[in-house]
Amino acid sequence: MKNLFADRMSKVPRSFVREILKVTENPDIISFAGGLPNPLSFPHNELAEAAALVLSNSSKALQYSSTEGYEPLRDYIANRYHLSGLDVSSDNILITNGSQQGLDLVGKIFLNRGDAVLIERPTYLAAIQAFGLYEPKFVSVPLLDDGVDLNILKNMVETFNPKIFYSVPNFQNPTGITYSLEKRKEIGKIFNKNHTIFVEDNPYGEIRFMGDDLPPVKKYLKKSILLGSFSKIVSPGMRLGWIVADNEIMNNLVTAKQASDLHSNFLSQMIVHQYLSDYDVETHLNKIRKMYKIQRDCMTTMIKKYFPSDVKYTRPEGGMFLWVTLPEGMSSMELFEIALDDNVAFVPGEAFYSDDPELNTFRLNFSNSDVKKIEEGIKRLGNSIKQLELK
Amino acid sequence: MKNLFADRMSKVPRSFVREILKVTENPDIISFAGGLPNPLSFPHNELAEAAALVLSNSSKALQYSSTEGYEPLRDYIANRYHLSGLDVSSDNILITNGSQQGLDLVGKIFLNRGDAVLIERPTYLAAIQAFGLYEPKFVSVPLLDDGVDLNILKNMVETFNPKIFYSVPNFQNPTGITYSLEKRKEIGKIFNKNHTIFVEDNPYGEIRFMGDDLPPVKKYLKKSILLGSFSKIVSPGMRLGWIVADNEIMNNLVTAKQASDLHSNFLSQMIVHQYLSDYDVETHLNKIRKMYKIQRDCMTTMIKKYFPSDVKYTRPEGGMFLWVTLPEGMSSMELFEIALDDNVAFVPGEAFYSDDPELNTFRLNFSNSDVKKIEEGIKRLGNSIKQLELK
Repeated sequence: MKNLFADRMSKVPRSFVREILKVTENPDIISFAGGLPNPLSFPHNELAEAAALVLSNSSKALQYSSTEGYEPLRDYIANRYHLSGLDVSSDNILITNGSQQGLDLVGKIFLNRGDAVLIERPTYLAAIQAFGLYEPKFVSVPLLDDGVDLNILKNMVETFNPKIFYSVPNFQNPTGITYSLEKRKEIGKIFNKNHTIFVEDNPYGEIRFMGDDLPPVKKYLKKSILLGSFSKIVSPGMRLGWIVADNEIMNNLVTAKQASDLHSNFLSQMIVHQYLSDYDVETHLNKIRKMYKIQRDCMTTMIKKYFPSDVKYTRPEGGMFLWVTLPEGMSSMELFEIALDDNVAFVPGEAFYSDDPELNTFRLNFSNSDVKKIEEGIKRLGNSIKQLELK
Repeated sequence: MKNLFADRMSKVPRSFVREILKVTENPDIISFAGGLPNPLSFPHNELAEAAALVLSNSSKALQYSSTEGYEPLRDYIANRYHLSGLDVSSDNILITNGSQQGLDLVGKIFLNRGDAVLIERPTYLAAIQAFGLYEPKFVSVPLLDDGVDLNILKNMVETFNPKIFYSVPNFQNPTGITYSLEKRKEIGKIFNKNHTIFVEDNPYGEIRFMGDDLPPVKKYLKKSILLGSFSKIVSPGMRLGWIVADNEIMNNLVTAKQASDLHSNFLSQMIVHQYLSDYDVETHLNKIRKMYKIQRDCMTTMIKKYFPSDVKYTRPEGGMFLWVTLPEGMSSMELFEIALDDNVAFVPGEAFYSDDPELNTFRLNFSNSDVKKIEEGIKRLGNSIKQLELK
């Protein structure tokens, strides 16, 4: 049957990460491929208590609810922004099914076919997939150690007049790179002069284990979208994220959300709110930060020890990933094949580009392996790189 | 700022139901407007038990999971279809955020701008909203007492070659109408001869409180989509529905689902599965059926008693709604204004048409009011109709 499916379906790249994750289900493989939080960080007993409380009191958690989300949870999020100096009202917060749904809703309300979407280079693969369904034209701006290259950014914005710029300013996926304070301010100046909406995705911001917190880019912008998530703070399985936007944008987001699935899981919204009310989230976050710092330190130490000295890598101050660059001309896809024979896995860099990938790069996840596995895995990977160099 | 939003956003009708629900939050108003299940039917203690079990055993429920959904839950659904004579494998089931998300995903994978979408007349408002975002051309076929008008259906399919036909064959929202067995078989013959996909939405099928179960239309179709939901069986607040589709369609649905929100709430999937494993769902369903039959019988009895005899209404054998037709020339929107002054609410019929609405119709919900409220509310509404007739 011809043309059974919509044109947009041909615009979505298969998730290579998804394919890899299937391979790495084999328990013999040490996998740095996925993007999973460490399950030791999940407060399952506390959430069980919260669930018991929520469900014993009433049936409210089980009924249909408002599209915007559970008001006390939105208040909690708004108050947390106040603490970090950002003036946000709960009216400007929509609860989504993880921040991935935030990307879909942003695509839905903003993108006509052929609109330019500016992305970082490399960028979060699933953002390319989410926006790809609305058939935009992707243009990309390279990342430097302290955020995007501002000269190229200015040029791209002027040349392509993009509808949105999608950015992960804190501990970016896949690179681990964080935008400097100066760059955040400069970006404010650039975007306040044009019509491009800055879409700031911040799933990892709370997981800073070194250095000082930096204000969201939103602080320097007149018009923007900010995405947040409980996936790395509480639990990804509960699929709870949120979008912060001004009233005009929020009206459209609510219309799109309602048409897409009426509202987010209300039971989970109430459970997470109960948990956040009954426990000190800072204590919980500090536990995660401490755990990930140990794992990240172990990984960079082992890379220094086992990788050839001409291999470069980022040293993220938070989040879950670091980014490795092999010497020019080497292929991380070839390395992937060799490493898999050594029972160690990662994600080759080319999955994170909309076009013209840097073939000598790859992503390592440090949040979901203990130090023993990290030491052994990086040792094996070092051997794989040496094998590749000899080829 | 001009053209800030995508063109598709102008194609989504505001939800009149949503606006009405805001008005009816006033506790003095007896509302037959919403589409809420009776919260007395929610098994909150049993779900609390299930949640405790799921969360005490492991952190698995809190981690990222597969896009397709929790395998044992998909097995449960497939087995339940087997019991009703439908051969479905769990591989052909995708768990969604309520069946509303099923509609969004169907729109996403099938609809190019301008494709014809065939709908019933009247139809479920939120289907118009979900598909509307993909900018199709809606064409509609009238409902008779035993399902769509087959002659007009054939004509519409031949003339417009629609990509999909969206249908609610059991206790339709808004009319309460159910397709006869003969009509289901005839529909199979019509659709097996062309390329239109029959999208069968069945959120109410399990809530039959009179008459005999009928097989899904899917049984007579070579290629189709079937949507199911736990919203009316267990809880709508948990947002769990599913799509049944063949492998080719399923591949596309999974790609679209992954791009849209990665996967559905995994904790809720495990809780609902635990509940369904530990308790007899038939006992639970019988409780709901009995409750709704009493409420529906009360409503039709009171309509007979208090409405003028020239007012027509459906007598659904299940589900949550019935449909009222005032004498030609009367306006249910005018009635709505009068009724609201009498503190009783419903949804005027025009909300359920994509074009050329029948202005003398309206929808009544009987699932979310007890018999006392139904008696008092229908009495008031009868008075409102008499006031309108005198105008």
